[in-house]
Amino acid sequence: MIIQLEEKISEKDYLEVAEVVRAIGYKATEVKTQQGRYIVAIGTKDFDIRSVGQLAGVSDVHRVSDAYKLVSNKWKVDPTSVDLGDGVTIRTGGLSLMAGPCAIESEEQVRKILAHLVENGIQIMRGGVFKPRTSPYSFQGVGIEGLKMWHTLAREAGIKIVSEVLAVDQIETMHDYVDMYQVGARNAQNFSLLLELGRVNKPVLLKRGMSGTLEELLQSAEYIFSSGNERLLLCERGIRTFEKSYRNTLDLNAVPVLKEKSHLPVIVDPSHGIGVRRFVEPMALAGVVAGCDGLIFEIGEVPEKAYSDAQQTLDFKESADLIRKTRALKEIAL
Amino acid sequence: MIIQLEEKISEKDYLEVAEVVRAIGYKATEVKTQQGRYIVAIGTKDFDIRSVGQLAGVSDVHRVSDAYKLVSNKWKVDPTSVDLGDGVTIRTGGLSLMAGPCAIESEEQVRKILAHLVENGIQIMRGGVFKPRTSPYSFQGVGIEGLKMWHTLAREAGIKIVSEVLAVDQIETMHDYVDMYQVGARNAQNFSLLLELGRVNKPVLLKRGMSGTLEELLQSAEYIFSSGNERLLLCERGIRTFEKSYRNTLDLNAVPVLKEKSHLPVIVDPSHGIGVRRFVEPMALAGVVAGCDGLIFEIGEVPEKAYSDAQQTLDFKESADLIRKTRALKEIAL
Amino acid sequence: MIIQLEEKISEKDYLEVAEVVRAIGYKATEVKTQQGRYIVAIGTKDFDIRSVGQLAGVSDVHRVSDAYKLVSNKWKVDPTSVDLGDGVTIRTGGLSLMAGPCAIESEEQVRKILAHLVENGIQIMRGGVFKPRTSPYSFQGVGIEGLKMWHTLAREAGIKIVSEVLAVDQIETMHDYVDMYQVGARNAQNFSLLLELGRVNKPVLLKRGMSGTLEELLQSAEYIFSSGNERLLLCERGIRTFEKSYRNTLDLNAVPVLKEKSHLPVIVDPSHGIGVRRFVEPMALAGVVAGCDGLIFEIGEVPEKAYSDAQQTLDFKESADLIRKTRALKEIAL
Amino acid sequence: MIIQLEEKISEKDYLEVAEVVRAIGYKATEVKTQQGRYIVAIGTKDFDIRSVGQLAGVSDVHRVSDAYKLVSNKWKVDPTSVDLGDGVTIRTGGLSLMAGPCAIESEEQVRKILAHLVENGIQIMRGGVFKPRTSPYSFQGVGIEGLKMWHTLAREAGIKIVSEVLAVDQIETMHDYVDMYQVGARNAQNFSLLLELGRVNKPVLLKRGMSGTLEELLQSAEYIFSSGNERLLLCERGIRTFEKSYRNTLDLNAVPVLKEKSHLPVIVDPSHGIGVRRFVEPMALAGVVAGCDGLIFEIGEVPEKAYSDAQQTLDFKESADLIRKTRALKEIAL
Repeated sequence: MIIQLEEKISEKDYLEVAEVVRAIGYKATEVKTQQGRYIVAIGTKDFDIRSVGQLAGVSDVHRVSDAYKLVSNKWKVDPTSVDLGDGVTIRTGGLSLMAGPCAIESEEQVRKILAHLVENGIQIMRGGVFKPRTSPYSFQGVGIEGLKMWHTLAREAGIKIVSEVLAVDQIETMHDYVDMYQVGARNAQNFSLLLELGRVNKPVLLKRGMSGTLEELLQSAEYIFSSGNERLLLCERGIRTFEKSYRNTLDLNAVPVLKEKSHLPVIVDPSHGIGVRRFVEPMALAGVVAGCDGLIFEIGEVPEKAYSDAQQTLDFKESADLIRKTRALKEIAL
Repeated sequence: MIIQLEEKISEKDYLEVAEVVRAIGYKATEVKTQQGRYIVAIGTKDFDIRSVGQLAGVSDVHRVSDAYKLVSNKWKVDPTSVDLGDGVTIRTGGLSLMAGPCAIESEEQVRKILAHLVENGIQIMRGGVFKPRTSPYSFQGVGIEGLKMWHTLAREAGIKIVSEVLAVDQIETMHDYVDMYQVGARNAQNFSLLLELGRVNKPVLLKRGMSGTLEELLQSAEYIFSSGNERLLLCERGIRTFEKSYRNTLDLNAVPVLKEKSHLPVIVDPSHGIGVRRFVEPMALAGVVAGCDGLIFEIGEVPEKAYSDAQQTLDFKESADLIRKTRALKEIAL
Repeated sequence: MIIQLEEKISEKDYLEVAEVVRAIGYKATEVKTQQGRYIVAIGTKDFDIRSVGQLAGVSDVHRVSDAYKLVSNKWKVDPTSVDLGDGVTIRTGGLSLMAGPCAIESEEQVRKILAHLVENGIQIMRGGVFKPRTSPYSFQGVGIEGLKMWHTLAREAGIKIVSEVLAVDQIETMHDYVDMYQVGARNAQNFSLLLELGRVNKPVLLKRGMSGTLEELLQSAEYIFSSGNERLLLCERGIRTFEKSYRNTLDLNAVPVLKEKSHLPVIVDPSHGIGVRRFVEPMALAGVVAGCDGLIFEIGEVPEKAYSDAQQTLDFKESADLIRKTRALKEIAL
Repeated sequence: MIIQLEEKISEKDYLEVAEVVRAIGYKATEVKTQQGRYIVAIGTKDFDIRSVGQLAGVSDVHRVSDAYKLVSNKWKVDPTSVDLGDGVTIRTGGLSLMAGPCAIESEEQVRKILAHLVENGIQIMRGGVFKPRTSPYSFQGVGIEGLKMWHTLAREAGIKIVSEVLAVDQIETMHDYVDMYQVGARNAQNFSLLLELGRVNKPVLLKRGMSGTLEELLQSAEYIFSSGNERLLLCERGIRTFEKSYRNTLDLNAVPVLKEKSHLPVIVDPSHGIGVRRFVEPMALAGVVAGCDGLIFEIGEVPEKAYSDAQQTLDFKESADLIRKTRALKEIAL
């Protein structure tokens, strides 16, 4: 059960609502986000929902049978839009494109990619400065100094930044230089990181775990939401399967299913999803048709020279083609 | 290595070619299909390919490094078209639609579906008369008598039939009443069935195994081809994953990858692929955009009443919508 | 529900029992095996079980809630023993060892292995004469002539034969030369083959499918049993996982779970299970401790020279060690 | 390549070694642990290993072709023993038992379990105070105050503590109250946590990721080792598969394979591994026979009443039986 509270509910009224919920036999969790105030009540007993709805300070009450609550589609009438500021908004039903390198490498690289994005009307640039690598001896990213450089150039170009955060202490370090945090597949169930991201006033793009189920993804989103941050995007980025012809298996089934289960926008990452450069375009287009609200993909001037993910990075011509095609496809009314 | 032989190669010349191949240290397999004659030579030694190409009776020689040979894209210039007769052809780059019930149940059911197909310009009807069921106590299909009834009605309506074959002895039983055999996921590595289907003068639609890799699918196709039958279709129908929100996980990554690896047409089955009725349409459309050459899907007048697969069957309105949308999507030049 | 019938039940009494079952609303399947006669009744309605149990010709009635019925542990008091003749019996709680090459290759090979088996007190030899190979160009086995040779030598040595059957028509071909049929992982859901094996008077060792669940394995066993053959063994032989350090992942969890679910003996195949020679012994011993009733493993005089599965075959010294250790381990009362 | 340095190598000599390594074209990473000092050099060029081995301050040089280096078996002659103080040591080839509840709940619970451990000669108690739960609304553990209580009682009883750490900031919080940190499956690739655990003077028990490969596990161990902490244990705790009869699939194949690949002790967790109480014993015993160096399992006075993992927790009688049997089994010389 989700109890939406009035913004200015008095402390006395709040305590009474919580008391009534507990009296029914439910466990009450108070949730305060930047957008609202809720009590999430967990229990199985049947009761008259009006007994809660009529209390002072309660604006609405919703039964939500899903294991996840606040990210469920069962209570929120309007789908969530995520505002990055300056008019950049990721809207359900829209098509937000985010592109950039696997890893930020140099000023020259950043300048060239920013120019490409501006030229193609893309408003959000992706890029890693802290890289999660299987081996401790692999390139770990340029770190915070690289992020500052990137931030300065991106601001000049009017482009927003999304970048992966690996650790709680990086949240503050990165805070003034990113417009959206990204949580990668390996941290999809790093609950302490998720909780901390709930306390931040920036949107979060949350990737599905490498072998994670959709329910696990939604529960991880619930961690962030219930900790205070409603501005969330869900991202399908490929799962592990037995197939060896591709790096991962982009699971486009997740798109319509997540759209049905949750009010959060759904983004597709075809670059990690299939992991093979020449197949990124068909999978991206298929993702658009399957109903995603945005794409995030890897580009570079000379993909072959990238420090990482070279084999799945599009060059600028391929990127421009993909952008044009996704937009054309999105406009078609079937 | 694939050695294409001239149709009228003399026995003497044939023996010499085979002898030369063996002398190089390769194992030679003779393949005669309805369309051509080949020697498939397996080995690893390096040699001058011209020494074979110049022999009498040899029309062409191709190095094929893939584990599968005759179904590989590495030797055949033109993609394969599969002719079902009467002008019904499944073409690479086309969009062949096949629809019908999970299982044939009654004459009335067949008549209604045929009428729906004719009305919507669909030329091929799918349907099972021998059903592979996990439990021996589940409905096993109407059998050969049902197939004969269906065949009579389909002929009258000018519609072709594709139906699953479960056993070698059914090949002959079904022969005069089907236009294409289907091999299901559970028989994807039933090699004796595949070999026998190589000796039949009817096309075969071969489904990927439930946890099968693409290489295994192509090797299974190689069994049929090398046993004599070139008229083959590959079908992606969903793989087993950990996700519980859908019955299977339709793997659309397989579409562009199979198209690159093989000259055979690639069909997508969104009904088994995701297994949830309301998600069949987005997955079908995504499959078209990913580049498939056809779709096979389940329909019924009142899906809720079907003996099997009720939860993934489209009704006639949903079917007509899907057909219209796939065609509109196919015509778009991005 | 399983209704055990008296051996000499009259036709009239039988028809009445079937009629009563149908009147309750259950679907009745008649099963006649070499050991008994049953009606398997499928339905969900509640009813007084005594109304069936008191009918003439009924010896016992059992509720079985599992999806599989006759192979379930819920009705059969005594675990199944499988008799191969001449005093060779695979007993629940015993430790039946079966060893031999992946593929039968030559008379010399067979003689040496038979001598090794006799020397070590092993009564059953495994070996393939029809080999299921992913590629049609790989060695497909020596066929029926090789089986006849093997059979002659094995009879002389007093050793029983278990060998894989790939196709319905091989059942009869092989019949006089094997003591037990084996169904491989790729045919675990080849239902027409399973049904036909139900009509044969020889035991069947049924392997789990490559990504098959235990319920699927038990349902496949149910196909054979309900078709007439009760002499069945279940075999765990490794499943497909993401791990690349071993060929398959031997799933020993299956051993205690299958033992609880079914009355059939459970055999472990550590050779295919892990697929790495030096790890076959620890996995075999772990299987014994986990509670299996037998082992089937691959041996050869010079494993490196085997036509197939060389990397998982034990030499005679390793085999003798393994045999000794498994027996020592089995005798320990913890 | 791993270059072992003399403990008292001069700064000048160190710089020269690093310079020589770089001159060969290798990337050098300096590693200082509580036990030793190393340069890990990554590169592919061939060179004369003596050119490095003869440098001043170098005690030994080893080629290590594995992707992981310091945790590899290829360079370290003696297997690692992990000392928890007060004579409690986890030895390769030994059998260290660790038992306790899923979650610490109360003083009474802790006292009873400690008494059971003392009675059965167990030296290490497991228990969670910070619980990683899929849902944010589930019980999250008693936290640091519970840990302090547990620590006091355990010290009195002479029992060591291993407990899961979920976040970097918990490392310091927990430091004085645990004898070993545990990293759970969900954090198996939480690299920032791993790096931080490398800087701590306490052993770490590292669990395999839910769908993680053995190479990923070893690389995660490499993160901790190369960050400074050599006192590591690897733990197999079940992987995700398609089987629904058990919670996870305990992969005992990992035991002999990890023992071969690494010098670190290997622990088996049969409780999470199979997740079904009555099957914990056979899987634990099978793990011992497969060669593990220790077991970690869940116990409770009344398992049915545990806040979490009730279905996989042994009661004290089952625990005592298991302890007795594992020890008896370990003593057998086969």
